[in-house]
Amino acid sequence: MIPKEAKLVFKGVLFDVYQWQQEQFDGTEKTFEKLKRKNSVNIIPVLDDGKILLIDEEQPERGDFITVPGGQINDGEKPKDAARRELREETGTMSDDWYFMGEYFGSAKIRFHEYEYVARNVKKVARQHLDSGEKIKVGWMTFDEFLQCGRDPMFAISAYLKFRIYEALADPKKKEELRREIFFR
Amino acid sequence: MIPKEAKLVFKGVLFDVYQWQQEQFDGTEKTFEKLKRKNSVNIIPVLDDGKILLIDEEQPERGDFITVPGGQINDGEKPKDAARRELREETGTMSDDWYFMGEYFGSAKIRFHEYEYVARNVKKVARQHLDSGEKIKVGWMTFDEFLQCGRDPMFAISAYLKFRIYEALADPKKKEELRREIFFR
Repeated sequence: MIPKEAKLVFKGVLFDVYQWQQEQFDGTEKTFEKLKRKNSVNIIPVLDDGKILLIDEEQPERGDFITVPGGQINDGEKPKDAARRELREETGTMSDDWYFMGEYFGSAKIRFHEYEYVARNVKKVARQHLDSGEKIKVGWMTFDEFLQCGRDPMFAISAYLKFRIYEALADPKKKEELRREIFFR
Repeated sequence: MIPKEAKLVFKGVLFDVYQWQQEQFDGTEKTFEKLKRKNSVNIIPVLDDGKILLIDEEQPERGDFITVPGGQINDGEKPKDAARRELREETGTMSDDWYFMGEYFGSAKIRFHEYEYVARNVKKVARQHLDSGEKIKVGWMTFDEFLQCGRDPMFAISAYLKFRIYEALADPKKKEELRREIFFR
């Protein structure tokens, strides 16, 4: 949480910086600092044959990486609408069977809402519609390939999905839970 | 990486903000932004009976959390000297058998060097010497308890250690590697 009395000291493109005077255990004060990152969504799109859709994305300066579709939520946009928009823009697919998996709240120093969705039975409805800073190829994996891919440090997924995947690898019960959430609700 | 041409647009307590004009795939330009976070160290301290030392830390505004000793590297300080200082300040122990495990470089948007050390055969040499913003109790765990504790989202360890712990839980070979690095080198 960023305390109410915190002041916005810098407004950036992706990050805003807040500071406040925090009383210490000995009664003195220190300047504390936290960030607010722009909120975003991620989507696990599932095909009717049980494969998971993934994207191979290239961004200027960052290069190539494998990830799930997703992106920033626009001002005033609802998370689910952002998920629909990003799925359509990045993969050209759409779904009418959405499931909200969970939410990541950021770390101790960075406030950040990241909403995680499953889009089941996705169908091709349009062409990709990419930003000037995106090149995207679409591919697919089985559930077990997805879990193994999650172990790769270069697989650029959210902390929430990384955590769910590793829990599934560490504990068969958690694996069944994740499988159910992705495929059956 | 933060590109050479990036400009420091805000200097904070913990985070500095850099921006630059990045050419997009269609030739247009966008303002890109990355952060530099102050570098830090973490230490896994091991007792001569094979237990791992952990700390229960309280910070103003953040509350209680379990973690390993560690903290920010001071300006001009070497990572290993910071590790020795933090271990002594937070636990009152010292070691003459140090092992450098690895380094975390931050995420796509946040540049951050976090250095991970093992301090073996630690011995009590002094009292704790805490900052005005710290209250710390020291405890210990076995290796297997440490791995299970690593699964707890409230266990406040670095992304590097989280990743090493989950890899150890997912793969017996990785578990033996981690065990060797912590206990035998």
